Amino acid sequence: MKTAFLGMGVMGAPMARHLAKGGHDVTIYNRTASKAEALAREHGLTAAATPASAAKGCEVVFMCVGNDDDVRSVVYGDDGALAGMASGTILVDHTTASADLARELAERCDNAGIGFIDAPVSGGQAGAENGALTVMCGGNQATFDRVKPAIDCFAKSCKLMGESGAGQLTKMVNQICIAGLVQALSEGLNFAQKAGLDGEKVLDVISKGAAQSWQMDNRGPTMLKNEFDFGFAVDWMRKDLSIVLEEARSNGARVPVTALVDQFYAHVQAKGGNRYDTSSLIAVLRDES
Amino acid sequence: MKTAFLGMGVMGAPMARHLAKGGHDVTIYNRTASKAEALAREHGLTAAATPASAAKGCEVVFMCVGNDDDVRSVVYGDDGALAGMASGTILVDHTTASADLARELAERCDNAGIGFIDAPVSGGQAGAENGALTVMCGGNQATFDRVKPAIDCFAKSCKLMGESGAGQLTKMVNQICIAGLVQALSEGLNFAQKAGLDGEKVLDVISKGAAQSWQMDNRGPTMLKNEFDFGFAVDWMRKDLSIVLEEARSNGARVPVTALVDQFYAHVQAKGGNRYDTSSLIAVLRDES
Repeated sequence: MKTAFLGMGVMGAPMARHLAKGGHDVTIYNRTASKAEALAREHGLTAAATPASAAKGCEVVFMCVGNDDDVRSVVYGDDGALAGMASGTILVDHTTASADLARELAERCDNAGIGFIDAPVSGGQAGAENGALTVMCGGNQATFDRVKPAIDCFAKSCKLMGESGAGQLTKMVNQICIAGLVQALSEGLNFAQKAGLDGEKVLDVISKGAAQSWQMDNRGPTMLKNEFDFGFAVDWMRKDLSIVLEEARSNGARVPVTALVDQFYAHVQAKGGNRYDTSSLIAVLRDES
Repeated sequence: MKTAFLGMGVMGAPMARHLAKGGHDVTIYNRTASKAEALAREHGLTAAATPASAAKGCEVVFMCVGNDDDVRSVVYGDDGALAGMASGTILVDHTTASADLARELAERCDNAGIGFIDAPVSGGQAGAENGALTVMCGGNQATFDRVKPAIDCFAKSCKLMGESGAGQLTKMVNQICIAGLVQALSEGLNFAQKAGLDGEKVLDVISKGAAQSWQMDNRGPTMLKNEFDFGFAVDWMRKDLSIVLEEARSNGARVPVTALVDQFYAHVQAKGGNRYDTSSLIAVLRDES
């Protein structure tokens, strides 16, 4: 299938490579053109100068960029993806963005006879590299069915959650569950260390019971060692939480701990930990200043 | 081995039964004598009228009661367990209590030539019924080694975490991790429902990734259905959290979300949910009054 992939960040680049490896024809675009050109040379892909030219002649255009504004700048305008896409084609947005934007894009696409799927992912850079992302989709069933086989090139799971925006809303639930959970784990492990316990021994025991979590199993050991230089950056988590808090304000869901943890992440940023993994919340508790 | 078990609550009763099934001679005691007598009849055990008489002639005395004061009332005084125990025997306390109490008991026992192990459990009523509790112990290695084979009758895991009090401190870490985690899960699932998503579908997708937890897998589905009439009661969780907050005040560990969630549990109590499972935090978010 002839496709384009817009946005060659830590997520987009490996996703595009998996698409190509899956037999699809992939034209790539990146805001910083040199990066796309280097990737194109290295992996035998084609790089385009604008989203519109990348999208030209494609059956499906995928994208994964930073935030709502980045999405709009890549999709709209004379050089934007929509300008290059024909009626009957499909745009898939893997960016974690607002549900409002997803509905806006769906409407703009629909007006041009183009299908749209909001499809934020979880699994992080490792999931993208290994082609094992979880993809949460919003849109209609027929459009979803046409793009799912291609998405499966980089996903271990790809599900349609509901109409446009439902993918984004599901990703928000995911981030809400993670934020408070990581804070609880941080409070527990910091307490363990302050109490003079052997943290690894504590993890070994409590991870077999009702306190168990993926974060405990995978981030607990590094939290104990103060290692945060990897994983999902605090800056990105704060972007996601700003979307969550905005949506919660509009749908009336109370998220008191999520809002508080967002402030703790602001503390990590203020201390220079912008690129730290989300598990760095424990550093806030340790901060003695 | 000749043993006694003091406290025939929802935890103690099945633990004592597993001890007897494991071939040990078990004399039981309960504050409300009729309950111990009924259990003795039903399971062919011996019931004693006081902790001291239950403990008489025993190599190991186990107990699992409510809180610090309950422990003191069962252990101290003319009718207390220590009055019936001989030098060279061992007292094992399965109550979730303060680390200070564990150290106090260890000293009082030591003065009488009696060994002491603080050994709070996790796994709840189901774990006790199935003989699959996790037991977190504090004390010295030699004493631990003598009681471990008996504890294994009702435990899937039994670990020595450090000196006296270390078992209690480990249990505190466990409860800290659970409190904030359940709140995060509550905020996520309530948000999902407010956003019009299919909650079970959301759980199915996000439980495969970084938001996964034992609570999500085991309590998420019942939370969506507003079912709280089972499991680990809010009253007990608040008792445990009061111990946590007291200990954190003394060791200097910051536990902001744990303290906040304790207040949300107070809200559940105020609404009459004292016996609800800890997963009832989601009801606080739904409360529209």
